[in-house]
Amino acid sequence: MLFKVRMTVKLPPDMPKSTADELKKKERELAQELQRSGKWRHLWRVVGQYANISIFDVDSSTELHDLLTSLPLFPYMQIEVEALCRHPSAIHADDR
Amino acid sequence: MLFKVRMTVKLPPDMPKSTADELKKKERELAQELQRSGKWRHLWRVVGQYANISIFDVDSSTELHDLLTSLPLFPYMQIEVEALCRHPSAIHADDR
Amino acid sequence: MLFKVRMTVKLPPDMPKSTADELKKKERELAQELQRSGKWRHLWRVVGQYANISIFDVDSSTELHDLLTSLPLFPYMQIEVEALCRHPSAIHADDR
Amino acid sequence: MLFKVRMTVKLPPDMPKSTADELKKKERELAQELQRSGKWRHLWRVVGQYANISIFDVDSSTELHDLLTSLPLFPYMQIEVEALCRHPSAIHADDR
Amino acid sequence: MLFKVRMTVKLPPDMPKSTADELKKKERELAQELQRSGKWRHLWRVVGQYANISIFDVDSSTELHDLLTSLPLFPYMQIEVEALCRHPSAIHADDR
Amino acid sequence: MLFKVRMTVKLPPDMPKSTADELKKKERELAQELQRSGKWRHLWRVVGQYANISIFDVDSSTELHDLLTSLPLFPYMQIEVEALCRHPSAIHADDR
Amino acid sequence: MLFKVRMTVKLPPDMPKSTADELKKKERELAQELQRSGKWRHLWRVVGQYANISIFDVDSSTELHDLLTSLPLFPYMQIEVEALCRHPSAIHADDR
Amino acid sequence: MLFKVRMTVKLPPDMPKSTADELKKKERELAQELQRSGKWRHLWRVVGQYANISIFDVDSSTELHDLLTSLPLFPYMQIEVEALCRHPSAIHADDR
Amino acid sequence: MLFKVRMTVKLPPDMPKSTADELKKKERELAQELQRSGKWRHLWRVVGQYANISIFDVDSSTELHDLLTSLPLFPYMQIEVEALCRHPSAIHADDR
Amino acid sequence: MLFKVRMTVKLPPDMPKSTADELKKKERELAQELQRSGKWRHLWRVVGQYANISIFDVDSSTELHDLLTSLPLFPYMQIEVEALCRHPSAIHADDR
Repeated sequence: MLFKVRMTVKLPPDMPKSTADELKKKERELAQELQRSGKWRHLWRVVGQYANISIFDVDSSTELHDLLTSLPLFPYMQIEVEALCRHPSAIHADDR
Repeated sequence: MLFKVRMTVKLPPDMPKSTADELKKKERELAQELQRSGKWRHLWRVVGQYANISIFDVDSSTELHDLLTSLPLFPYMQIEVEALCRHPSAIHADDR
Repeated sequence: MLFKVRMTVKLPPDMPKSTADELKKKERELAQELQRSGKWRHLWRVVGQYANISIFDVDSSTELHDLLTSLPLFPYMQIEVEALCRHPSAIHADDR
Repeated sequence: MLFKVRMTVKLPPDMPKSTADELKKKERELAQELQRSGKWRHLWRVVGQYANISIFDVDSSTELHDLLTSLPLFPYMQIEVEALCRHPSAIHADDR
Repeated sequence: MLFKVRMTVKLPPDMPKSTADELKKKERELAQELQRSGKWRHLWRVVGQYANISIFDVDSSTELHDLLTSLPLFPYMQIEVEALCRHPSAIHADDR
Repeated sequence: MLFKVRMTVKLPPDMPKSTADELKKKERELAQELQRSGKWRHLWRVVGQYANISIFDVDSSTELHDLLTSLPLFPYMQIEVEALCRHPSAIHADDR
Repeated sequence: MLFKVRMTVKLPPDMPKSTADELKKKERELAQELQRSGKWRHLWRVVGQYANISIFDVDSSTELHDLLTSLPLFPYMQIEVEALCRHPSAIHADDR
Repeated sequence: MLFKVRMTVKLPPDMPKSTADELKKKERELAQELQRSGKWRHLWRVVGQYANISIFDVDSSTELHDLLTSLPLFPYMQIEVEALCRHPSAIHADDR
Repeated sequence: MLFKVRMTVKLPPDMPKSTADELKKKERELAQELQRSGKWRHLWRVVGQYANISIFDVDSSTELHDLLTSLPLFPYMQIEVEALCRHPSAIHADDR
Repeated sequence: MLFKVRMTVKLPPDMPKSTADELKKKERELAQELQRSGKWRHLWRVVGQYANISIFDVDSSTELHDLLTSLPLFPYMQIEVEALCRHPSAIHADDR
């Protein structure tokens, strides 16, 4: 089941660089692990912003919530979720 | 080069059903042709709305504009475009 | 899987009363059938508006989209969908 | 009498973890007590957000205000209230 | 129980003047009857707009919904409802 | 001359409780004095919010500005002002 | 007593030119009469829009409402009103 | 050439009172000097807000920018600028 | 003096194609004439929309208003104007 | 390929002046270098705001993202990006 998610990151301006770097490193590791598992199907950067547009493929909305709240940067993100489904004109099997 | 596009369709309530059906049929044919060509990379329906979220892979913003304005339903669409680029944590080769 | 849906109905001012009545009668029949099936779990009127707040319990976002677009009043509705999941402090078994 | 309430929690980024944990523990206890009493009829998590959608069943708007402002997290919440009433097409006795 | 209601009227530009006048006359009669009954406690015009700010004193949100939807101009109104309760610093007995 | 005013209070999270209590005590005293004088005609709490809806009856907009800016909590308030006048369907003499 | 008013005019696209011209002519005559009387103190065009920014100097908000609703174009205007008062740093006697 | 400017001032809550007083004193002196020069043609307080509505009469948009950014409170202001021109129905020579 | 203008065109859906074509032809001729004169300095299409972003170089805001309202499509445009001036880091002589 | 970018700068009020000056100096140097390279085609100040409107001419959206995020003031900017393309009525060769 697909969801489009937009995550915008706002780190506090006074967060020490080492803390931010450590958070970003862990975020990256988890993001890549979730991509390899197929749960985080697509991940793009929004041009000019510290934000991404992502497509998640999960078994339930609960699973999506658990994934999102497990992200190290979650406390610093504004997140918008939109439920998607197959479009009648789609031709690619995995745009389900 | 990737763009996320959101298209929301609003047909006039007094459009004859045959006109609407003909427009939708042509829209579908062109949408599928553009998907086969690789230009319209992804196409999803937004749940509960006569709207889609799409990812286009084009050579230039001019090409995107020409594709969008050639859609039979273009005169009845509200369209939002967002430029995307590769995310440093992306692992899939085609999330470029 | 739960979704909160808000539907706001706007009938064209020049729709004949008989057409509107027929649409509302069919809408009511389908709404009650879906409630009996357990898919449309809750249905409330928003005070002072021709709008409702509903909770749907469906197997997938595709099923929700199919239910919503099958409503006779769908062409006249503005619809907002929000994915819900179980709250860690919830105590009722069916607030899943 | 029913009200839909949406609560979004924003804890100050510099609140000590122990303070936050203590607040959340008390919030949970009161939320569960109010659910057992029947006043807080439904409680769901909004996917991807530190927010909930709730249905309260109270004797008056004053009672609702007193309940909401007694929540330990109230000073850190943005709250939206919407009055609901029975929908003419509702079939469940407690969607009153 | 008190509710603040803001009603903004938008009559279709092509409504015959006689129809509009008849609607306004009936609206006025009902508005005054409801004021005499004490249900419609206050009624003010918003300066420069075809809109009013009102305070209703009703037994339940259902009663408020029934009153508002019975207004002859209801189909042409945009309505916003806000639940009020007694302010701890209020001194007038009827600002309950 | 009547004005509807909506005041939303946002105290800084790090304001000492004794400072906040002192401010609120002075605010309450002045609010009650202004109500007794007839200038602050109505005062209601908005359900679920640290906000009020008020009706002021003043001789001029200058007088309203002076009253509002003299409130001890003024520096912490977001204020919206709307000019009201008598509604042609109003029946109560003091809804002038 | 001063009010800033912003009026945006939207004539229906199918209004006959002669009707529009007649409305505009009457609007102009009344606007100039009100300027001569001192009630409509300033009148400016907003660049690029069929809209104006005006300053009214009236005895009461009721008088302002009566003036605005007497304008021939009132049924086709969106109007925003903001109460002004003398600024402590103003030096011109008539910026009262 | 005329511009309407709206300035809303937000001083940091922890700015020392002496700093704020000094800024306001210098702001007032410059505002009055600019009014005397004819550049800052009108200045009004918005009722209930720490904000003003002003009319500037400058030779160019560059001159307006230089004036606004020279204000001592500029770093603490949110500023909106709207270009005005003479209204065809205006009768006062200086509403140019 | 420079202004950024955004024009969004909305033709009525029932405008005859010949009328629309004639309007667009005249619009194009005037737009090109104004570009040749140097008044309409830049003109770009917004991707995916029937809208443009333009830079005008005019002697006064009055001149800009006269140019914009003389456009054949003006009655069908939503127009936003923003005053620009030279940026201190600009290096091109004509970004004045 | 052209993009319109709007950058609004918000420096933290407690940033030391020397830090701000150093950031602005580096920003200026890079902005001028990018203008000389032809990538940052136009740069204008928005009147009354610490903001600019810019036109970038880049080979791809990735290149734009890399340029914007390399700006020393990027962490303090709110950035909006809009894709542009050649307008059919444009006459200047470089409004491509």
